[in-house]
Amino acid sequence: MSNKTNTRLLDALNARPVDRTPVWIMRQAGRYLPEYLETRKQAGDFMTLAGTPELACEVTLQPLRRFALDAAILFSDILTVPDAMGLGLYFEAGEGPRFKHPTRTPQDISRLPTPDPETELRYVMDAVRLIRRELNDSVPLIGFSGSPWTVATYMVEGGGSKEYQHIKRLMYGDKNALHELLTRVTTTTINYLKAQADAGAQALMVFDTWGGVLTPAAYREFSLHYMQQIVDALRASHTSTPITLFTKNAGNWLTEIANTGCHGVGVDWTTDLQEARALTNDAVALQGNMDPGVLYGTKERISEEVKRVLDSYGQGHRHIFNLGHGIHQHIDPDNVSHMIDTLHSLSPSYHQ
Amino acid sequence: MSNKTNTRLLDALNARPVDRTPVWIMRQAGRYLPEYLETRKQAGDFMTLAGTPELACEVTLQPLRRFALDAAILFSDILTVPDAMGLGLYFEAGEGPRFKHPTRTPQDISRLPTPDPETELRYVMDAVRLIRRELNDSVPLIGFSGSPWTVATYMVEGGGSKEYQHIKRLMYGDKNALHELLTRVTTTTINYLKAQADAGAQALMVFDTWGGVLTPAAYREFSLHYMQQIVDALRASHTSTPITLFTKNAGNWLTEIANTGCHGVGVDWTTDLQEARALTNDAVALQGNMDPGVLYGTKERISEEVKRVLDSYGQGHRHIFNLGHGIHQHIDPDNVSHMIDTLHSLSPSYHQ
Repeated sequence: MSNKTNTRLLDALNARPVDRTPVWIMRQAGRYLPEYLETRKQAGDFMTLAGTPELACEVTLQPLRRFALDAAILFSDILTVPDAMGLGLYFEAGEGPRFKHPTRTPQDISRLPTPDPETELRYVMDAVRLIRRELNDSVPLIGFSGSPWTVATYMVEGGGSKEYQHIKRLMYGDKNALHELLTRVTTTTINYLKAQADAGAQALMVFDTWGGVLTPAAYREFSLHYMQQIVDALRASHTSTPITLFTKNAGNWLTEIANTGCHGVGVDWTTDLQEARALTNDAVALQGNMDPGVLYGTKERISEEVKRVLDSYGQGHRHIFNLGHGIHQHIDPDNVSHMIDTLHSLSPSYHQ
Repeated sequence: MSNKTNTRLLDALNARPVDRTPVWIMRQAGRYLPEYLETRKQAGDFMTLAGTPELACEVTLQPLRRFALDAAILFSDILTVPDAMGLGLYFEAGEGPRFKHPTRTPQDISRLPTPDPETELRYVMDAVRLIRRELNDSVPLIGFSGSPWTVATYMVEGGGSKEYQHIKRLMYGDKNALHELLTRVTTTTINYLKAQADAGAQALMVFDTWGGVLTPAAYREFSLHYMQQIVDALRASHTSTPITLFTKNAGNWLTEIANTGCHGVGVDWTTDLQEARALTNDAVALQGNMDPGVLYGTKERISEEVKRVLDSYGQGHRHIFNLGHGIHQHIDPDNVSHMIDTLHSLSPSYHQ
């Protein structure tokens, strides 16, 4: 890695001018990379990969060897937190994440422990420290967690869900119990993010994948309220570590998300950046928002879409280019190179 | 069935005053009803149930025997159209719909026939005629189709999808081929909806379940454009049959949907009706928008949410109460009764 420090990401988050639009890719360390698949095969399973600092470090660095990215993001999973709370995370082949012990009753909730990040999640902190050492300040390292709401959906459903039967039963049947669960997850998440920052993460991100399945009132009460607590806590304890919130399908709520005092807001591809910028009034950096499906396209179409995203944001220094959601596994890495090359050639003219 | 004609639904769609808010439920004939499960078991499989007019009529009428609903909706599936185009629809147990012959290449697309609704889809038209006879004008019958975009996603993917890999490959790789596919599906859909209206459907609805996975530009080009063609064609040929468009996750696009000239717009639960009404300016009826998950809740919470939805719309005659998406299979029918009773007792005061 180069030892010239690339500060574009942190500059955009902190409202300092940049020479071109910084870029990273959600799930940039992932199954679309043959070298990732190779390391994953060596590890045997996902939890060994995420749980072994040397392997997590290796896959974190892999995309940076291929692409001129402006940030690394810790290779981990949002469900390490409930795993550390005793739910027993495992992955069924082709099935996504599952928990051996879902959290469904008030009794289940009242028994949840508050893990110590440097003990039960020590493997994550060790990975952060190792990655920082290997990066040698070439690019910043992003740490992350799930939002309390999103993590709670997995804890209550016991895995992924389409209809959110169990958590909505709790929400509309016993909302005090749900608030108790969200409070406990929030406490652990705050401790976890602080520990990542202490271990060396230079920016933090909260993924609220499932906030968009809520009514506006329920989003405020069960998702945004707890992300606000995270922002407040981190802003108080780690003033120089910017934090980005990303709720998928949050087109209606971008103003309220920006009003939490976070530094960056993720925008999926269903909202144009021009509109997102108008709704958030340059108070935050905007991260996104190319449709991940564009990368299935021809090189010409990819170039067009990069330009469309840049045009939509327009002139300014607070855009962090990214996909609107994680990169898909069947994407050709050559198309990713093409996207990044195009961005590097076009974006300086948006920073004049 | 009563032979006093209930016109509330058609009145709300046609901007005529009503005494209380009309109500029906998406997937009201469905797996949450024990009598549906019984008929489904007799039929053996979903396609026999949907394909036998007497059985389709029976399950269409079942929810009207239990609940004081203001409309019946044809029991069928949005994928009967591509099935009639030769794709071979089937259902794997627990897997959702599948096609034996997905449509993926320009060659596949160019070979798609234009079925005659009164021939290849005769069983649907016979069901419509039978249901109308049995309803005896007690409540109106709603006919429906999928949107061309939504139907095309299933045709190209070969079934349900999370990432829309194949259709996005077409969209960003060969958009002319995708437009050719959408044009063919639109032609057949228009013929199909006209035939349903001719057979007796008194209102029509287009379900655009997957329009919300598109960028704003792609939504206009690949989904809304073709729904506009449907509205234009039906308004020209069937002036007295109101048509409702429903794109899930369309909070950003409600104004544009209303501007097609449709009579009603479906609103899922992620947008408040107050905002939807402001965006559409009473030019259309608004249908929705209770979170289907509310029906897992206590009776008290269900009552509160019915009131919240009514308050959100406010005073006025163009609200059609419904869930924001189909009812879930594990819902207790008693909770549905409670929702409808509450609506009947509260809603007259919003029509003064």
